[in-house]
Amino acid sequence: MSKRKICVVVTARPSYSRVKTALKAINEHPNLELQLVVAGSALLGRYGNAVDVIEKDGFTISEKVFMVLEGENKTAMAKTTGLGVMELANVFYKLQPDAVITIADRFETIATSIAAAYQNIPLVHLQGGEVTGNIDEKVRHANTKLADIHFVSTDDAKERVIKMGENPDFVINTGCPSIDLADEVLQHPDLDFDPIEKYGGVGSSLNWKEGYIVVMQHPVTTEYKEARNDVTKTLEAVHELNIPTFWFWPNVDAGSDGTSSGIRSFRERIKPQNIHFFKNMEPDDFLRLLINSQCLIGNSSVGIRECSYLGVPVVNIGTRQNRRERGKNVMDVTYDKQKIAGAIKERIASKREKEQIYGNGTSGEKIADQLSKIELNFHKTIMY
Amino acid sequence: MSKRKICVVVTARPSYSRVKTALKAINEHPNLELQLVVAGSALLGRYGNAVDVIEKDGFTISEKVFMVLEGENKTAMAKTTGLGVMELANVFYKLQPDAVITIADRFETIATSIAAAYQNIPLVHLQGGEVTGNIDEKVRHANTKLADIHFVSTDDAKERVIKMGENPDFVINTGCPSIDLADEVLQHPDLDFDPIEKYGGVGSSLNWKEGYIVVMQHPVTTEYKEARNDVTKTLEAVHELNIPTFWFWPNVDAGSDGTSSGIRSFRERIKPQNIHFFKNMEPDDFLRLLINSQCLIGNSSVGIRECSYLGVPVVNIGTRQNRRERGKNVMDVTYDKQKIAGAIKERIASKREKEQIYGNGTSGEKIADQLSKIELNFHKTIMY
Amino acid sequence: MSKRKICVVVTARPSYSRVKTALKAINEHPNLELQLVVAGSALLGRYGNAVDVIEKDGFTISEKVFMVLEGENKTAMAKTTGLGVMELANVFYKLQPDAVITIADRFETIATSIAAAYQNIPLVHLQGGEVTGNIDEKVRHANTKLADIHFVSTDDAKERVIKMGENPDFVINTGCPSIDLADEVLQHPDLDFDPIEKYGGVGSSLNWKEGYIVVMQHPVTTEYKEARNDVTKTLEAVHELNIPTFWFWPNVDAGSDGTSSGIRSFRERIKPQNIHFFKNMEPDDFLRLLINSQCLIGNSSVGIRECSYLGVPVVNIGTRQNRRERGKNVMDVTYDKQKIAGAIKERIASKREKEQIYGNGTSGEKIADQLSKIELNFHKTIMY
Amino acid sequence: MSKRKICVVVTARPSYSRVKTALKAINEHPNLELQLVVAGSALLGRYGNAVDVIEKDGFTISEKVFMVLEGENKTAMAKTTGLGVMELANVFYKLQPDAVITIADRFETIATSIAAAYQNIPLVHLQGGEVTGNIDEKVRHANTKLADIHFVSTDDAKERVIKMGENPDFVINTGCPSIDLADEVLQHPDLDFDPIEKYGGVGSSLNWKEGYIVVMQHPVTTEYKEARNDVTKTLEAVHELNIPTFWFWPNVDAGSDGTSSGIRSFRERIKPQNIHFFKNMEPDDFLRLLINSQCLIGNSSVGIRECSYLGVPVVNIGTRQNRRERGKNVMDVTYDKQKIAGAIKERIASKREKEQIYGNGTSGEKIADQLSKIELNFHKTIMY
Repeated sequence: MSKRKICVVVTARPSYSRVKTALKAINEHPNLELQLVVAGSALLGRYGNAVDVIEKDGFTISEKVFMVLEGENKTAMAKTTGLGVMELANVFYKLQPDAVITIADRFETIATSIAAAYQNIPLVHLQGGEVTGNIDEKVRHANTKLADIHFVSTDDAKERVIKMGENPDFVINTGCPSIDLADEVLQHPDLDFDPIEKYGGVGSSLNWKEGYIVVMQHPVTTEYKEARNDVTKTLEAVHELNIPTFWFWPNVDAGSDGTSSGIRSFRERIKPQNIHFFKNMEPDDFLRLLINSQCLIGNSSVGIRECSYLGVPVVNIGTRQNRRERGKNVMDVTYDKQKIAGAIKERIASKREKEQIYGNGTSGEKIADQLSKIELNFHKTIMY
Repeated sequence: MSKRKICVVVTARPSYSRVKTALKAINEHPNLELQLVVAGSALLGRYGNAVDVIEKDGFTISEKVFMVLEGENKTAMAKTTGLGVMELANVFYKLQPDAVITIADRFETIATSIAAAYQNIPLVHLQGGEVTGNIDEKVRHANTKLADIHFVSTDDAKERVIKMGENPDFVINTGCPSIDLADEVLQHPDLDFDPIEKYGGVGSSLNWKEGYIVVMQHPVTTEYKEARNDVTKTLEAVHELNIPTFWFWPNVDAGSDGTSSGIRSFRERIKPQNIHFFKNMEPDDFLRLLINSQCLIGNSSVGIRECSYLGVPVVNIGTRQNRRERGKNVMDVTYDKQKIAGAIKERIASKREKEQIYGNGTSGEKIADQLSKIELNFHKTIMY
Repeated sequence: MSKRKICVVVTARPSYSRVKTALKAINEHPNLELQLVVAGSALLGRYGNAVDVIEKDGFTISEKVFMVLEGENKTAMAKTTGLGVMELANVFYKLQPDAVITIADRFETIATSIAAAYQNIPLVHLQGGEVTGNIDEKVRHANTKLADIHFVSTDDAKERVIKMGENPDFVINTGCPSIDLADEVLQHPDLDFDPIEKYGGVGSSLNWKEGYIVVMQHPVTTEYKEARNDVTKTLEAVHELNIPTFWFWPNVDAGSDGTSSGIRSFRERIKPQNIHFFKNMEPDDFLRLLINSQCLIGNSSVGIRECSYLGVPVVNIGTRQNRRERGKNVMDVTYDKQKIAGAIKERIASKREKEQIYGNGTSGEKIADQLSKIELNFHKTIMY
Repeated sequence: MSKRKICVVVTARPSYSRVKTALKAINEHPNLELQLVVAGSALLGRYGNAVDVIEKDGFTISEKVFMVLEGENKTAMAKTTGLGVMELANVFYKLQPDAVITIADRFETIATSIAAAYQNIPLVHLQGGEVTGNIDEKVRHANTKLADIHFVSTDDAKERVIKMGENPDFVINTGCPSIDLADEVLQHPDLDFDPIEKYGGVGSSLNWKEGYIVVMQHPVTTEYKEARNDVTKTLEAVHELNIPTFWFWPNVDAGSDGTSSGIRSFRERIKPQNIHFFKNMEPDDFLRLLINSQCLIGNSSVGIRECSYLGVPVVNIGTRQNRRERGKNVMDVTYDKQKIAGAIKERIASKREKEQIYGNGTSGEKIADQLSKIELNFHKTIMY
């Protein structure tokens, strides 16, 4: 029997981290062949060059798809998506996969879904059924309605996808592969490298060995004009606390330059002595950095998913993760300097607790196993 | 108070017919301004030049969007959609509408949805919540998940959209505007023109005054290779029955040329004396033609919607209208010459009955009224 | 030493015919590797499906590029070209050829030139330096200025390219490969097949064995509104003469549907008994058909190139071939029914003479030979 | 008589500076109507937001065209051009100008040329006929072959365009409008503002009042991998000389991020105390800055054109301006730290001389005058 060709489209740095163990499990499965497509901001230097990490991790890339249109606004975001549909239609036509995997809810993931569904290629959606509350929400559920098979991360998500009318036989809680990596790293949690030495970055050199915090704050798409103001609040809070801080640049998004320019402007004006900035980090190094940190601040989904499994305290700012299932490790605050500073102090002092909301560390294998045996269709109808 | 700008994107001849009365009601509403965008196959001669009809009907067209990529295959269909997103993103950026309306479930309607939703423009979806069972099904429900407001056509559809997690406050059964036109035409049902004289077309001149049938058969996207065979069955059945027949060319779709070439080939080989072919007809003339016909044959949704209201007998062939709510006027058959011929005879002999499944003739006004007063948001979250 | 990878982009049926022997010679050359890209209308059924002929001829196709935007107008022509640049940029990035070949002067050939030149791939232009006098003229000379190497077809053309400032070391008169095929067919000139039996087509069956003429008339881009009128003149003249006629549909172009619809309309109205219509024919069959015909009518460049070598009489209508070097076999007329009819009669009665203006039948080999040894650069500067 | 509609497409910051007086003259001419299209990097923050300057200068913008694809490589450059063709085709279709103006030789200017020429709109090319020697060279001459009318800047350029086969009646030496602005600024040459106070920027605050130099170095497209090394040589030379320096970021180009990251890296490593960095400056402020500077360093064409008129000493580095006509003010050097430093010292000490190679300060008016009366055609043929 010939191997099933499974095409996965990775469009951004965080998406890669999130599916890495699934990619590995597909690659190693005797009945599966991985066709890895790297696209969008995952190819671009100013969003962390995920492509280099992917190649260093030993994956063979089948196709690279440049599709990000410059414009720093929502029109460019839409046009990037349209361009993505056109380019990915070509790619799938050429690769002729047996199934295509689209990941979660970034705006451009719907390009993968359309290019596959319209060419009658069975579409698998990862991490559907979750709830947030911005443009991601629309994208995620539209992906669900375009997809034939759903590998979800939690029991709640499973129930929600079924409620939306999907066939329960094709909705499977595999857990989130991001937890696999967290689980793996948790076996060897020591910070065995010097972050600044290994990753360079810009900003102050820090005395981080006595304790540090990590910040990762993305623009919230539907509010991109405020992105600059929002990030400034966090910068001010972190600067005031004067705790050594590793800060990660945001990935591409309509407001990217709002957030980025907020950071750049703050650096020029204030020259904060306690913050060092990174563009990117290999996923396992990043998780190790989190495990050994006192707190993660910002609005990354890492705070919700991985950190609950790892037991890392999180200050979650703003609406970006609204309604997502979260553990006891998370404290939510608004864009307010004092509240952010207060929450960081509270969280640093809190007791650490680990939870298994988003999986138990075997998600990649479960996904590969399902892909090798599940019935592949591209014809579905709503269940009610 | 300034008028609300309502942008409607019409991408095909049948879509126009379906929303014409809503366009008119929006145009005439004191608090609304219509921004009409004509796109895709609605601009092309070989799909009936809907644009000419639209202009003749007195509408002002704000923008024309050429986006159909040639290719006669599914890859071209996907790329057309991607191109549509890019072009419509420009259009909405320029027009800055207060709301965008996307219609039903043709593959390219998702381009309208993405271009609007990604630019934070409130999106209204017409005719969601219905069920068919091919690629349209995926597109329709994905449109639902991208849309903020839903004007549905039946009670069943309303219930289904709500079940999918949409906020009931924004799901309104307005009926289908296609029924308005049917209702209007029903006031003056006489066939007051000679179809061949008025519309030309090709093929035999017919003795239609003693009774005739109408055929409209579209390719079924996910089976496009069979399109040629499928249409040949209908051609053979209709040719054998030897009843005067008005046949309408299919509109653009991946298999368009399958169906079209099937028809062309049959014409060349058989030179059927009882069939006359039209490219297009003005909507009210078309409805009048149906009212006075003995039967409609094919797989058009007109058979399901308008014909149930008009009480016109229908032979519905194949899977294209699967699971759509239908009245007593419809008989379903498979692609089989004898079954088709038998069903036509049975239907011609049947008793006519009118039903109000898809509305009562006031849908256009209801839509305009709702658009003038409903809260316009672009931020939603699933209800469960 | 590794083989030089030579990427040739074929975008239309006539372009293929014109370079076929060069493709063959490249394919068979020990130091060259052919990368054949088939694009644009060469992939489309309604323009003759050149791709099928190419595959039947035994060539391996490296990439297929769908890029024709529907629209039947000049805007669509421009957008098709833009789309072509985007798609071909991907293709060349992937194939990494040592040189790219762009052919002649069709509007979309500049897409090949840009996609290659902008990626620093040495660009070879075939058939530069000729003169016509419409949009082709602009495209052809712009291709010259983007190209690094020029394989021209005549001494005049060579002189002209050099005059435009190109380096004489890189301007080589190879003759036109279309003449190679003409030369080859001329060895076995008998019409050894029944055209209608072999190629089908539509229209009357003809008594062609006692003598026939051939028509091939393309729309002239910058006058596309008149395309329908223009072709009607030829149809009327040919119909009046009542000589058995093989008529070839035009290939894609802005006015395509003007010409095509003119033909379709004439067929419906007049039902000409002496005309049979073909979509396409294999190149050698087509040449054999010409050799055995009494005259070629229309505006195809075949009349100018191949027919002068074959000694076939030609009535050249209108401006499309203006200023192109021509032999004694050609008579030029305007779009006038009587003048066309008169010229056909005159030409049929004329004495046949063969000339070698566009080469001597070894062009394909000369091109392959040059490609194997010429210096490949992408950096040039004007010579004065 | 209705006004002639003249559509000018500005795609980058330096292009705007170069044509500003022509735009003004068109705008004010009684028989002309300006349709200003701002596109490409002229719209983007990280290339200096030319659009803001344009609006501040009082021009009304007819259309904005986002077309820059991210990718930091030559494939993206080609695809940006393709996208530009598609978008500009729409724009010209909508604006229906009587003539379109394309400027000089940036890679994306050919998009303007194609979109106009293919839609039969008379195309005017500014600054053709010059010679440099990289991809610009190909683009510039291809623009010439697509254009119907040529407004050139020097007598040499005029002769060269005619030699390429253009009709001398349509080749007019208007001079370069950039000289108009230089001429105007020369009337009031004092530096009446504090650059850092007015424009912000980043880097050291400088003691510039006792004398300063200006640097503007762009990546050279066909050598983009070396961009980072090249710029570092200049940075080192300038750093060593320790003269107060105003440095301008490069505009978008394939190697942009090579040059930009070279600068960023140097700043982080060396923290040069004598350099202040600007993104952009209003054109007249920039010229005033040059007039009062001791020397301009880099590879900008401003050094060749405006500075010869202004008599500002220039150190021109590398091949970017190769073969362009230059005055006595320019000294050419290679990418070599010591040679650059030496040349800067030599130039600072040199005697200033003004020359009128590129015009006498009335170019904008000449262009507008010609546009109001010259015959507008889109049909041309080569003159030999």
